[in-house]
Amino acid sequence: MSQHPQDPIQLAEEIRAALESPDAEKKLGDLLREIRSEDIAVVLDDLSPRQKRKVFSVIETEAQAEVIDDTDATSQEQIIDHLDSELLREILEEMPPDEATDLLNELPQNRRREVLAGMDPETTVELLRLMQHPPESAGGIMTLDYISTEADSTAGMSLQRVQSQIDSEVVNYVYVIDEKRHLKGVVSIRDLLGSNPDIKIENLMNTEVISVLVNSDQEEVANLVRRYGLKAIPVVDDDQHLLGVATIDDIVQVISEEADEDFYRIAGSPEGHPSQQKILKRAMVRIPWLLLPVISGFILAWLHPVDEASSIRQILESAADRRLLLAAFIPLVMGIAGGVGTQSATLVVRGMAVGDIEIGRSTLRLFRQEVIIGLLIALSIGLVIGSVILVFDGIQTGEINLLFPVAVTAGIGIGILLASAFGTAIPILCGKMGLDPALVAGPFITSFNDVTAAITFMLVTEFILNNA
Amino acid sequence: MSQHPQDPIQLAEEIRAALESPDAEKKLGDLLREIRSEDIAVVLDDLSPRQKRKVFSVIETEAQAEVIDDTDATSQEQIIDHLDSELLREILEEMPPDEATDLLNELPQNRRREVLAGMDPETTVELLRLMQHPPESAGGIMTLDYISTEADSTAGMSLQRVQSQIDSEVVNYVYVIDEKRHLKGVVSIRDLLGSNPDIKIENLMNTEVISVLVNSDQEEVANLVRRYGLKAIPVVDDDQHLLGVATIDDIVQVISEEADEDFYRIAGSPEGHPSQQKILKRAMVRIPWLLLPVISGFILAWLHPVDEASSIRQILESAADRRLLLAAFIPLVMGIAGGVGTQSATLVVRGMAVGDIEIGRSTLRLFRQEVIIGLLIALSIGLVIGSVILVFDGIQTGEINLLFPVAVTAGIGIGILLASAFGTAIPILCGKMGLDPALVAGPFITSFNDVTAAITFMLVTEFILNNA
Repeated sequence: MSQHPQDPIQLAEEIRAALESPDAEKKLGDLLREIRSEDIAVVLDDLSPRQKRKVFSVIETEAQAEVIDDTDATSQEQIIDHLDSELLREILEEMPPDEATDLLNELPQNRRREVLAGMDPETTVELLRLMQHPPESAGGIMTLDYISTEADSTAGMSLQRVQSQIDSEVVNYVYVIDEKRHLKGVVSIRDLLGSNPDIKIENLMNTEVISVLVNSDQEEVANLVRRYGLKAIPVVDDDQHLLGVATIDDIVQVISEEADEDFYRIAGSPEGHPSQQKILKRAMVRIPWLLLPVISGFILAWLHPVDEASSIRQILESAADRRLLLAAFIPLVMGIAGGVGTQSATLVVRGMAVGDIEIGRSTLRLFRQEVIIGLLIALSIGLVIGSVILVFDGIQTGEINLLFPVAVTAGIGIGILLASAFGTAIPILCGKMGLDPALVAGPFITSFNDVTAAITFMLVTEFILNNA
Repeated sequence: MSQHPQDPIQLAEEIRAALESPDAEKKLGDLLREIRSEDIAVVLDDLSPRQKRKVFSVIETEAQAEVIDDTDATSQEQIIDHLDSELLREILEEMPPDEATDLLNELPQNRRREVLAGMDPETTVELLRLMQHPPESAGGIMTLDYISTEADSTAGMSLQRVQSQIDSEVVNYVYVIDEKRHLKGVVSIRDLLGSNPDIKIENLMNTEVISVLVNSDQEEVANLVRRYGLKAIPVVDDDQHLLGVATIDDIVQVISEEADEDFYRIAGSPEGHPSQQKILKRAMVRIPWLLLPVISGFILAWLHPVDEASSIRQILESAADRRLLLAAFIPLVMGIAGGVGTQSATLVVRGMAVGDIEIGRSTLRLFRQEVIIGLLIALSIGLVIGSVILVFDGIQTGEINLLFPVAVTAGIGIGILLASAFGTAIPILCGKMGLDPALVAGPFITSFNDVTAAITFMLVTEFILNNA
């Protein structure tokens, strides 16, 4: 294995080359043995479902557990659906219990039952106990794999207990409980190592333990860890019974996830990890949010001073009146273009910040994807707007005039497409030039898109109306 | 101390009560002994500079070091400016070296020299060495306080070394180096405890260490830690010499800080931790970003079909022409209102997510502050817009007409004020109702503000023009 992490794009190419070679099985095995399972997890995203399963089948069970745990939802699904229950069970047994629980929660109920049925009873009980807690609560991220001791034990005895449970997930702290499992204190491994082995735990333990209730939101857990610089936090019930321990490595994931979630929600595109979702799905989650600027845009168009006595057909006959009518739609165009551009830009900025998007060949792929998504959004939102105009005008005049709605739809559609392209391209270009993409992603792109979309809209619509 | 963290608002009240009691010194001392230094650090923000210094003077040096490290920049400055160099030196010696370095970097040069002069030479060398690295690089966040061993040492000897350096910042890993300090491998404390004491380190160590170059950005360090689930990462130079270790608790701060930074930049309000800055400064950093929608708004106003032959005075004489002229400014109003609202909303959402803003009495204070900031922004941006219109019209007609610029300034100013108030209030109300504020902070608030600001602008401006 290399000391520095590998470039996922280059890795994907090497894997594809190995897959196509005559002795694929051996080549692939040799290659994958050299690669960390975290890197394999990332690379899967770049492979076809068949290739994913091939790669997965070549690696050892332990690595399989890590890959399944770390990879994106789509790859996870594609692999698990084709896995026989026996292997899936082995993989689940390899995973830390808190993560095995998350995976079990994703399975269809009968599959879950089948997998659990073959497991040893102890693990089954542990997993079922963890599955009671919502995945985003303290109970959902805690592990049961910690070490406890009693107040009247000694430092030496407790250290021996650590040594006998050395594979436990939490070894840095030993939690002190009474006979009813009430949390009484905590001793760090540092204290155990640095003390006389005969000293009593009750004289060594810190009784001022910060703990968290099992049903607290994971965000609260993260905030406590951050505020108090903790490396692990015990999870208790209302009666202070120790139920488990949330560790900092899980909490690092939580902090990132919660920040991602807020980012995408503020941008109006709650997509999860964007580049790891299917394109159609990515367009679908963004469209509902864009109906908000459509609604406000129509309100503003309706408030705009237009000669209300005339029908659209009459208005269109005078060039000046026509420009005025089109101007009434500029707030709508601006709102949509700003919304689409912010969505695209935020996804790029956040993806680059957390390393999901690397500046390189994969940005071109991202740009292509965003343009396709922009096109899908442009078509849907354009059609919505065109239909509304058609119906309004139809009700007013009793006639169906297609020209104006079609022209407006085209103008807004092309504006949306450009906004999406600029929203993606500008932060990528900034990143390539070594500037912080977040600095341009907000007001700059919004203002830029406002102007370009409005001008595009006027030009395209006037062109169609003049030439029809 | 309590097991659960304390409510900072209640804490601040208790501290104020103690400060005003007859035997303030004793009362305060008794109270503060019961409070974690991390909580004192948070509470300082709610106190006056004099109160801050009083609280600070009562606690012990060790707690002082923690409070200084954790508190906001303003409180830090207010306390340090009044500290004598002897005490400041003691505090710095108590702090972890990577954090002492950050604090030293904040001091004026002659103060820094004075403080360093009195320190013991070993610490001075250590701090000066750390100060060579930019604060946001791997070198800037690493600690020198780790434990190293040699490949031909044994598990038992290495464990003894851990026990003799038990106060070291990193005790979970022991780094294996050669005689020239090249990084050769890593052994976890778990491996040391779980092995035969006579086993050689070279047979125990993991040679596939992920390390990071000293000049890498802290964001890259955070991404490696997150991707590979590490608890610490060794920092090396180009020749693989071990220079220090970045630990996960510092990296948790980095992950939050980088997310904060991107959040605020995308919102066009790079304020750092918002509620901890002075109001005037908070308004000042936001205004430049709002000039972008002003520029795009003027471009769109200029594109808007208006009877160009007439001067503003002539246009204003006809009610229909006047409405048309005002309509040309709606894109400008929308752009500004959207920008201001997004700034306010993002600050609230992020502050609530990371626990800087708690739903309670402090949200009222936040709302008041945001309204004042909104007023400052409204005044500045309103004046900019008014002046531009005045000058443009002046050049065109050779006269100075105050009425129209004043009316537009008032209309836009009130629109901005409302946008800022709604941008703050809507996410707060969502939070109180148990909804995720991030869900409304983006497109919803933007669309809402677009409409309310445009209507407010038309109503206010028309009212002034009609009644002048």
